[in-house]
Amino acid sequence: MINSPRLEVAVSVEESSRSALIPALQTIAARLRIESVRATSEAGSGHPSSCCSAADIVAALFFGHMRFDPTDPQWEDNDRFILSKGHAAPLLYAVWAEAGFVERSDLLRLRELECDLEGHPTPRLPFVDVATGSLGQGICAAIGLALNARRIGSDYRTYVMVGDGESAEGSVWEAAKVGECFALDNLCGITDVNGLGQSRSTQWGHDVDAYAARWRAFGWHALVVDGHDLQMILDALDEARQTSGRPTMIVARTLKGKGVPLMEGKNGCHGQAIKKGPDLDATLAALESQLVAGTLTPTIPPPPTRIIESASGSVGELPLPDYRLGDIVATREAYGTALAALGRVDPRVVALDADVGNSTFSEKFERVCPDRFYQTHIAEQVMVGAAMGLASRGAIPFPSTFACFLTRASDFVRMAGISGSNIKFAGSHAGVSIGEDGPSQMALEDLAMMRAVPGCAVFYPCDGVSAERIVAAAARHQGMTYIRTSRPKTEVIYAPTEEFDVGGSKVLRESESDVVTVVAAGVTVFEALAAYDHLRSEGISIRVIDAYSVQPVDTETLVSAGLQTGRQLITVEDHYSVGGLGDAVSEAVAHHGITVARLAVCEVPRSGKAAELLERYGISSSHIIAAVHRQVNAGAPTRADGS
Amino acid sequence: MINSPRLEVAVSVEESSRSALIPALQTIAARLRIESVRATSEAGSGHPSSCCSAADIVAALFFGHMRFDPTDPQWEDNDRFILSKGHAAPLLYAVWAEAGFVERSDLLRLRELECDLEGHPTPRLPFVDVATGSLGQGICAAIGLALNARRIGSDYRTYVMVGDGESAEGSVWEAAKVGECFALDNLCGITDVNGLGQSRSTQWGHDVDAYAARWRAFGWHALVVDGHDLQMILDALDEARQTSGRPTMIVARTLKGKGVPLMEGKNGCHGQAIKKGPDLDATLAALESQLVAGTLTPTIPPPPTRIIESASGSVGELPLPDYRLGDIVATREAYGTALAALGRVDPRVVALDADVGNSTFSEKFERVCPDRFYQTHIAEQVMVGAAMGLASRGAIPFPSTFACFLTRASDFVRMAGISGSNIKFAGSHAGVSIGEDGPSQMALEDLAMMRAVPGCAVFYPCDGVSAERIVAAAARHQGMTYIRTSRPKTEVIYAPTEEFDVGGSKVLRESESDVVTVVAAGVTVFEALAAYDHLRSEGISIRVIDAYSVQPVDTETLVSAGLQTGRQLITVEDHYSVGGLGDAVSEAVAHHGITVARLAVCEVPRSGKAAELLERYGISSSHIIAAVHRQVNAGAPTRADGS
Repeated sequence: MINSPRLEVAVSVEESSRSALIPALQTIAARLRIESVRATSEAGSGHPSSCCSAADIVAALFFGHMRFDPTDPQWEDNDRFILSKGHAAPLLYAVWAEAGFVERSDLLRLRELECDLEGHPTPRLPFVDVATGSLGQGICAAIGLALNARRIGSDYRTYVMVGDGESAEGSVWEAAKVGECFALDNLCGITDVNGLGQSRSTQWGHDVDAYAARWRAFGWHALVVDGHDLQMILDALDEARQTSGRPTMIVARTLKGKGVPLMEGKNGCHGQAIKKGPDLDATLAALESQLVAGTLTPTIPPPPTRIIESASGSVGELPLPDYRLGDIVATREAYGTALAALGRVDPRVVALDADVGNSTFSEKFERVCPDRFYQTHIAEQVMVGAAMGLASRGAIPFPSTFACFLTRASDFVRMAGISGSNIKFAGSHAGVSIGEDGPSQMALEDLAMMRAVPGCAVFYPCDGVSAERIVAAAARHQGMTYIRTSRPKTEVIYAPTEEFDVGGSKVLRESESDVVTVVAAGVTVFEALAAYDHLRSEGISIRVIDAYSVQPVDTETLVSAGLQTGRQLITVEDHYSVGGLGDAVSEAVAHHGITVARLAVCEVPRSGKAAELLERYGISSSHIIAAVHRQVNAGAPTRADGS
Repeated sequence: MINSPRLEVAVSVEESSRSALIPALQTIAARLRIESVRATSEAGSGHPSSCCSAADIVAALFFGHMRFDPTDPQWEDNDRFILSKGHAAPLLYAVWAEAGFVERSDLLRLRELECDLEGHPTPRLPFVDVATGSLGQGICAAIGLALNARRIGSDYRTYVMVGDGESAEGSVWEAAKVGECFALDNLCGITDVNGLGQSRSTQWGHDVDAYAARWRAFGWHALVVDGHDLQMILDALDEARQTSGRPTMIVARTLKGKGVPLMEGKNGCHGQAIKKGPDLDATLAALESQLVAGTLTPTIPPPPTRIIESASGSVGELPLPDYRLGDIVATREAYGTALAALGRVDPRVVALDADVGNSTFSEKFERVCPDRFYQTHIAEQVMVGAAMGLASRGAIPFPSTFACFLTRASDFVRMAGISGSNIKFAGSHAGVSIGEDGPSQMALEDLAMMRAVPGCAVFYPCDGVSAERIVAAAARHQGMTYIRTSRPKTEVIYAPTEEFDVGGSKVLRESESDVVTVVAAGVTVFEALAAYDHLRSEGISIRVIDAYSVQPVDTETLVSAGLQTGRQLITVEDHYSVGGLGDAVSEAVAHHGITVARLAVCEVPRSGKAAELLERYGISSSHIIAAVHRQVNAGAPTRADGS
């Protein structure tokens, strides 16, 4: 725990008088439009019309309402702003230039390779909490920011600007529901209803009441404003701040391209930069005429001073797993046990569930840390989106559900990867070993999905000890991790003191006469061990490796084993052959002349008993034995001789 | 075109009188509960409590309202029923046994490996249009079924049973929006509000008005009923049928486990089969007491007879692509051109868009076939879900969006794979070559996602000719396909008559002195060709292969090339290294002693110009040249000698 008292913000708190405020905001809004237009014209691409519809709202929010330290965008008590309609990025950059944080000259470097002012916002910029640009995600992250304020006891408020087009995304309504269920009155959305999407009118056009009715039906306080009437916007924001017990959605009627004669209210201008030359000159002249002479930029009030006790530093140590060799426990249950222990030792740890906590065993965490357990009900997108928001503010979120249902949030996982989110995903019920529930409940592509996130550490424990130790390793690791757990109970094969970390593996069986190495993970470790026993009775020795770290894999151990066992590896995994253990191992040993034979699920499976399915889909001990026999009978593989 | 007149259904159309109907339905509902309980007890797993809440509704629907031929569940004019809450599968199987299609004795084989009555419904059963079990998807598929009725000019109605828990999924509200926008008055949902989820109360418990208010806000006709009052249910279904201009949602208040004393209204009974023995005996006795003596099963009325002109057979031939060698065209634009041509020649072809038709060029299809172009706005889940429904009824759907946003529907793609859906996905703007828009808009994991669907044919054309020919190949292919297109314009390198099909490749450069083979696809084909030219000037020959079929890859050509070029392959792809071209090629040549070096994107990219990004992320011609130099300098790779 670090006790870091609030530093005094080095800006004056002198407030512009109310009457002077509106002209000042008008000037700021005009400047935001000018900068947005100019930057996109310079870049030759971008979305100026989407910036212009929202410029008045953003000006009012940043310079007439929000409380934050513009010199320190990451300050813990700052009001937060998420631009869910991320394509209006130039507007965001312009307002931070207006606030003094971004160099105004940098605005013209928009979208350049060496400039962090990217086409859509990413957290490479300190004032961006989560990457946006895949629509409907920012509002889910905003849920996480609002939950985080409660977690840390801060009064900061969260604002999120939502596009009308993106309101067609179901994730927006998942966020609506969760915002209602948690009564997040520290959250305020503003929907920029400019009526025009990329290719045509949006679903409800300029029918602002259609938007308001939906938000009201979802339990939010909703009010309709003219999104170009600064006083109305300010009044609505005040009303939102005074609304308790529920979040507020301000539905703002706007014009796309507002203030730009070439674009205002016209279809077909989405994602069109204005060409430099006469078009740009005329546009800038029109916008400059909207500047009000003699106005001063209002001072942004800092957040209230308070003593902050925030956790930081390394994650607390967990007690050793309480199993003996030979005990029987499901890795998903051990996951829950460790998660609860982690919750006890570190207040940053939070868990999110989509109504399967009694299957994933995150319910164990709920029992000990109910205030940090967030139930989204069956809504995986907002579960992951909220985790992104929480992670961006220093929480260590563990969202979990059935591994197959994490695919529901695949685009969120992708964006969390772009955000560099420190999220610890867990997916239970992996593979055909779940048995009778059938293919819809079997994750067979989750390893591919998670491995595709650059830098994501992917774990697949086989027993209770490794599962618990891996939960601790995941919490320690800075960056995204994924823990894949299994439904069936399995035997504990590791001593409680055994260590597991990113990039490791365990050689479970080895001798100098091993003819081949079998690389397994999770449930297939036990199939490999059974195959070992059987083959030994035939006088055949194999090496068995538990590749519990599927990404990164333990290249050194794999290469070494491969070279020592006839340059033959057999991978066996309860996953499709694409993107899983087999691919990971193959890539790792690619330059060492080692042949990798893969046993994996190769067709859509069906319901049945777990053991039957492992057999049917080719990943049981008998298939491993057969694969080893093939290698032994074939002798050295077709390598140098091309046969 | 085949003219197949309606066959007379071999059932009587004699109707039970209204007064006799209710007791008959009571008896059926009791039998449905009995069968659901008995089957799950026999299986030792399943969700009887979820069946019992919905039994009255299903009895009323199937035997008091719907029109279908129970001997031919696939008949084109049958009313359709989707069980979106797929875990109530035993109820579905029981009602089809009641209708005479399923052998009653088979019900007790629920969840057995060799029985098609799986844990959750799959289209292995003729009365299941799409696999359900991943919640919130069935109602999206129902949108597709309802759209299909319009496409074929049928009066059939579509019914979908939605769980209250699954109503938390955003996809449900995407479906709500699309149902409203298309004014689908041939669609009727029933929400089974039993108030209990898996681990706790659902988000709105038994507040049926909360559900109805949301559906009304989303433009549906909504009415509330007691889900155990058969007359109320029948009246509501009649009202739905008479409602025009909008879909209807019947919000039914029910009790989970209704009729089973051990479970009725109790939390903690989700997914619990009743143990055989005294518990089961008492339960069956209680349910049997609900049977009404002397009732007869009502006759199900067949759909009205009509002349059906449905398309079938092979897809019509397309004209040859209209490009000359050296023309410049983006593959995404060629995709649109071919799609429009396909729409002209085959009425089964439909296209779906999520408001990016002017980027993917599906707008070309819209211009020629506006009635078969379905705009879902920015809602990718319902776009894919509706495609599943359409495909299940014989349409050939081409849903398209930016490739990265297909990940938004990843779980739908997964379930479409389980359904064996004949969907032709297209994703544009693949990879870093999109340039300045930045990582949120770059698909770098789409190949992994689509390759993970067993049997999905994955194409990645590099020029206009191959793109057009591949659209035709995809349409011809029976089963799921994916076409990955690019944003930049590229040179046409193939003659219009060149043929492209599943599993093919093109050897673009070859000689007897090739030292290595470079395998490229899409934009990297041009990088490989540039590298070829450069290396040739240095006196180094390389083979260049366009692996336009990424799944299946052309194993024979790859192996042959590898063996002829020093057992060295270099793959280069505008995709992360996980699950893409490199993995596919590696697996294909794994047993031939060929080393595969991979060039792929290995970190989260940023905004910049396309050429800069190809260079920065290691997939440009200069990186290919460097990789070739490494091979040449190293001589034969570290293979047999282990060095």
